[in-house]
Amino acid sequence: MSNSLGKLFTITSFGESHGRVVGIVVDGCPAGLAITEEDIQRELDRRKPGEELVTTARKEADRAEVLSGVFEGRTTGAPICMVVWNRDVDSSDYQRTRFLVRPGHADYTAYIKYGGFNDFRGGGRFSGRITAGFVMAGAIAGKILNIIGVEVMAHTVAVGDIAARPAEVDQIRRKAGLNRLHCADSEAAGEMMKAIERARQQGDSLGGIIEGIAIGLPAGLGEPTFDTLDGELARALFAIPAVKGVEFGSGFQAAKKRGSQNNDPFTIEDGGIVTTSNNAGGVLGGISSGMPLVVRVAVKPTASIASSQQTVDIKEMKGASLEVAGRHYACIVPRAVVVVESMMAITLCDLVLRAGLLPRVIK
Amino acid sequence: MSNSLGKLFTITSFGESHGRVVGIVVDGCPAGLAITEEDIQRELDRRKPGEELVTTARKEADRAEVLSGVFEGRTTGAPICMVVWNRDVDSSDYQRTRFLVRPGHADYTAYIKYGGFNDFRGGGRFSGRITAGFVMAGAIAGKILNIIGVEVMAHTVAVGDIAARPAEVDQIRRKAGLNRLHCADSEAAGEMMKAIERARQQGDSLGGIIEGIAIGLPAGLGEPTFDTLDGELARALFAIPAVKGVEFGSGFQAAKKRGSQNNDPFTIEDGGIVTTSNNAGGVLGGISSGMPLVVRVAVKPTASIASSQQTVDIKEMKGASLEVAGRHYACIVPRAVVVVESMMAITLCDLVLRAGLLPRVIK
Amino acid sequence: MSNSLGKLFTITSFGESHGRVVGIVVDGCPAGLAITEEDIQRELDRRKPGEELVTTARKEADRAEVLSGVFEGRTTGAPICMVVWNRDVDSSDYQRTRFLVRPGHADYTAYIKYGGFNDFRGGGRFSGRITAGFVMAGAIAGKILNIIGVEVMAHTVAVGDIAARPAEVDQIRRKAGLNRLHCADSEAAGEMMKAIERARQQGDSLGGIIEGIAIGLPAGLGEPTFDTLDGELARALFAIPAVKGVEFGSGFQAAKKRGSQNNDPFTIEDGGIVTTSNNAGGVLGGISSGMPLVVRVAVKPTASIASSQQTVDIKEMKGASLEVAGRHYACIVPRAVVVVESMMAITLCDLVLRAGLLPRVIK
Amino acid sequence: MSNSLGKLFTITSFGESHGRVVGIVVDGCPAGLAITEEDIQRELDRRKPGEELVTTARKEADRAEVLSGVFEGRTTGAPICMVVWNRDVDSSDYQRTRFLVRPGHADYTAYIKYGGFNDFRGGGRFSGRITAGFVMAGAIAGKILNIIGVEVMAHTVAVGDIAARPAEVDQIRRKAGLNRLHCADSEAAGEMMKAIERARQQGDSLGGIIEGIAIGLPAGLGEPTFDTLDGELARALFAIPAVKGVEFGSGFQAAKKRGSQNNDPFTIEDGGIVTTSNNAGGVLGGISSGMPLVVRVAVKPTASIASSQQTVDIKEMKGASLEVAGRHYACIVPRAVVVVESMMAITLCDLVLRAGLLPRVIK
Repeated sequence: MSNSLGKLFTITSFGESHGRVVGIVVDGCPAGLAITEEDIQRELDRRKPGEELVTTARKEADRAEVLSGVFEGRTTGAPICMVVWNRDVDSSDYQRTRFLVRPGHADYTAYIKYGGFNDFRGGGRFSGRITAGFVMAGAIAGKILNIIGVEVMAHTVAVGDIAARPAEVDQIRRKAGLNRLHCADSEAAGEMMKAIERARQQGDSLGGIIEGIAIGLPAGLGEPTFDTLDGELARALFAIPAVKGVEFGSGFQAAKKRGSQNNDPFTIEDGGIVTTSNNAGGVLGGISSGMPLVVRVAVKPTASIASSQQTVDIKEMKGASLEVAGRHYACIVPRAVVVVESMMAITLCDLVLRAGLLPRVIK
Repeated sequence: MSNSLGKLFTITSFGESHGRVVGIVVDGCPAGLAITEEDIQRELDRRKPGEELVTTARKEADRAEVLSGVFEGRTTGAPICMVVWNRDVDSSDYQRTRFLVRPGHADYTAYIKYGGFNDFRGGGRFSGRITAGFVMAGAIAGKILNIIGVEVMAHTVAVGDIAARPAEVDQIRRKAGLNRLHCADSEAAGEMMKAIERARQQGDSLGGIIEGIAIGLPAGLGEPTFDTLDGELARALFAIPAVKGVEFGSGFQAAKKRGSQNNDPFTIEDGGIVTTSNNAGGVLGGISSGMPLVVRVAVKPTASIASSQQTVDIKEMKGASLEVAGRHYACIVPRAVVVVESMMAITLCDLVLRAGLLPRVIK
Repeated sequence: MSNSLGKLFTITSFGESHGRVVGIVVDGCPAGLAITEEDIQRELDRRKPGEELVTTARKEADRAEVLSGVFEGRTTGAPICMVVWNRDVDSSDYQRTRFLVRPGHADYTAYIKYGGFNDFRGGGRFSGRITAGFVMAGAIAGKILNIIGVEVMAHTVAVGDIAARPAEVDQIRRKAGLNRLHCADSEAAGEMMKAIERARQQGDSLGGIIEGIAIGLPAGLGEPTFDTLDGELARALFAIPAVKGVEFGSGFQAAKKRGSQNNDPFTIEDGGIVTTSNNAGGVLGGISSGMPLVVRVAVKPTASIASSQQTVDIKEMKGASLEVAGRHYACIVPRAVVVVESMMAITLCDLVLRAGLLPRVIK
Repeated sequence: MSNSLGKLFTITSFGESHGRVVGIVVDGCPAGLAITEEDIQRELDRRKPGEELVTTARKEADRAEVLSGVFEGRTTGAPICMVVWNRDVDSSDYQRTRFLVRPGHADYTAYIKYGGFNDFRGGGRFSGRITAGFVMAGAIAGKILNIIGVEVMAHTVAVGDIAARPAEVDQIRRKAGLNRLHCADSEAAGEMMKAIERARQQGDSLGGIIEGIAIGLPAGLGEPTFDTLDGELARALFAIPAVKGVEFGSGFQAAKKRGSQNNDPFTIEDGGIVTTSNNAGGVLGGISSGMPLVVRVAVKPTASIASSQQTVDIKEMKGASLEVAGRHYACIVPRAVVVVESMMAITLCDLVLRAGLLPRVIK
């Protein structure tokens, strides 16, 4: 396993879905940053599911606890360990189906990799629940980015085959928070909600697409050749369970364009250099251009569905059918929005430090 | 800059397009691997452009030279430094347009990041030419993977709006090498060639999509939470100039599917566990499942086009128009196919070592 | 800050002396290792001070708690987070002398580095207390090493100017645990104890030398050129507060020898290759030779002494005199013995994994 | 193998004693640094042996070649690859004694680790010759440090049992360069030279002690808990062949002192905080204090001696006697002085960047 991410701003993830705790250690945070448990909690609460999106609700009244690295209301330069305790955990169903590997989940691959010793309950390390740690770290990263005027936001742009209409940054900022879907197009959000409800009633699930945007990024972030802005972000985003694709700017659509269409012409505006379009999504040669960073993430439909599925009993090595019990989110896209923001903030924070754009002590 | 990639099998890239050399150091290669300069050269030759794809040809009779790490025809366990020397280099045009940042290129971002000290000639570090180093490293990685029965292949699945028909692994293996496009669908390859020629005549360029496949991967590769199989591959693939998107299995299409469609049912076949479909693209929870690894990469249209473009003179800080001189590949997709293979092989090799699946000495 | 150590077996340290917790995350531990909180506790207890060595006792009834990564009595392959909670903490004295930087401590350097935001109470991150985390991680590493027949032990070889007589491995194993000093020479141990008591009564402190030994190491550990066996161990050992020197084998004495004396002749014994002496301390060219690994560590006298010392008030920027209150260990050498063992075990465990000598799953 | 060192300022070493080349890649060097091949050559020349120190001279008219990363006389931000070509290489003797592992050398351990595939000629990767790469990288690091007013120097303080008298920084700066021994005490230098000559005539060799000093270091360098100033330096210094011990400030002598003697009192001088003694050697809690950094390195006597030695034939697995042919340096201490400086400069440069004390572009 390799549970650390980042070179100067480093997070180390630990904990399991049904273990005692889910947590994160943030190392490399500049000293002097004002931070409270409430700041962390606020982001954590944004990750909560709307009841209506859930078939079987797990009450996650998660409370962020800061165990180290903060003193007198400010970061000390020391590693910041944060945890949420696991409560309201019922693992009995998982015990019953222990050897029936769930399609679309990591049960099989984890079983092979860890020789069957992995904590399988609720998916263990592979549960979406470990992203609670990502969000706590993201809360800190976000505060750091704010200092240099960087704002990170994400919103739902598609659920199943329902796509939101394109939205301007300002519209996303104002409207995405108004609905459970974190979708800036409230009309589309209504349709998405209905589609999710339909899927839920059919014991099925939906995926979608989340777009992340960072505004105010200075040009010059990213450490080519290999620790590029896009490469580092992609790696971080693929750590979110269910992500199957990552694209920047015009992304896969770029493949269909001509160079004359896809190249973003440079011009001078207000004394600075900008491009008149942003097909690059704010990244050229692995380095930020100063234009908005735009990344889109494909989220597969929730693997846990209520219907019966074909699988194998990995112990008996024979075919089996499985009805996944436990809680199901018919669509995890809305919950993943804040996680996308968090992984972006964490990655950008590391690259900001690596580019030498932030002092080690914040006054 | 950060020019190293990989934890146990590590490559370090160096060199510039118009400098003395392009090279790579491969560190962590097991001792005892039989390797010759011819093995390296063979892969390097596959990266050569077809003359018909190029508007202005640079004669790249690149010869791979192994400077260290190989003794008596075998790797020694020591770092392997390989170079190709730059010859036939004419930088005069680049000097003339030094401060006219080329749209779609890294000229602007590199200028900002390196304070104008970067070697701008031919794109310097950001030239596609540095991938010659990747391919030399990939040749070694490929040989290592062969030992454990892993085969990596890539092929062109789309150029502009022309898509190849889906192909089986065996078909790709037999047919992709037969045309300049590295496309397993020879009919589509013909159409692609025509489209590229048309774009070229119009002073324009095309992008496309490359699919990479790895066969024979054992289940269990990938180091979650953060050094996942998909995340590590994505990071490596984004180091290839012009890549704007990476997806696995059903990828962005997964977002439109339902869980019941997208989940791959498990079954037992020949005494082993397989899935009856492969929407996951061979990766579940960031770990290989033993099914074919399938990744698709979006390549943007070549940024260098012959037409006049709007840009700025970064020194004078005023608008300008630019006609990019130098050599143009109207479509770099075909050349990038072997680079995709190389980055896949390098990344897989690292993960194979990290999973403890390869001895440190090959007998 | 950089609070992670190790490439495949990685520890991440967190917590402060007077904060809520001291802890460690162990990442990369093979799955399937049988481990209990009692195993951890046993090592932790060995770190406890003897009452007689302490001027002002802090009651550290530390209980190791495993928060993650262990399931059904075995490691799961997931990161193992372990903590001890800080109790019996009185920080009032530290508040009073907050700006009087203590000579020999990190108060001044931490103040400068972290802009005064560091948690200064009890030394914060720089307290010997954080080594409780090292010891918990070391307990796991030790269990792993036992699997491949490696035994790590440390003992006190000098306190102040009292040196223990040279001891054989077997003698160290049997006798070092019998006294508070962890000294294999019980007579010298008695003298050491008296010397410490004398220093204590004079409000002063003593240093000493600890020797660490690893038996049963296979030849071939260490990753030259830079991640050598000796270099990696040295780096880990310098993380122990108060360590000022590290030497291997004949160490600084080697500088006075001739090559003909210092070279260890090879011979064959029981069908294997050994050396007839061990001036190399088991490491040649940064790689283990299969002979016992022998490292010695210089521990400076405890910086906290009861006498009045000259210092400055860092806020007022003026001279001051300071009497350090709080608990004083007149000699921390005995407590550091188990910490030396732990850092050795952790480092060796990483190198064993890197050498490919341990499977990722322990059956 | 692991041939990279440093997190932000990273060197990657390659090449062998009798291969084609010895080289280094320096990654992370700020852009804009003025550097010429002559700057590199000047340091490289300081590594040359005095003829009188050598029994059998190898003519090393090494010429530093910069292959990448420098353009128009300045660093570009791209990786800097530098090589010296191996010439005047006669490997015949090494072929003859291929399986007779030389006592005190890495022949045996390398044979085991790399399964006999290592390039054994002249010690291959384990030859002192690879330090030519360290010195080239050190030349760049030294230039960077100069920008922020840091000066690194090293000098010989002991050869065999002859110790130089303690010297002030100014004396070292003026006098150490005046003799072949790099010893600031010219009288002792004369004695050392005689002792080396005696050892040489007897077919034997001597070791010694080198002291490295860094002046002008800002307080605050070092990244505890694990990437400490002392720990990182120790790791880098142990990469120099023949180093068996590293100590800081009073080092092993600290073990014999009392806290009241060893603690360095703080005082105010010229408006800044200093200590009135420097037993700490400029490092407290793993962080630089602003006082001179003082490190001492124990160098074992040259393993290659002209006398007959007992060893084994590793292929036949039987005892043998060996007279090492090839060139012998009766004492490598003088040659290692510049290497100690180089490793210090490289390490300090990395920590300076990590502490955020240097911009990424030097104007």
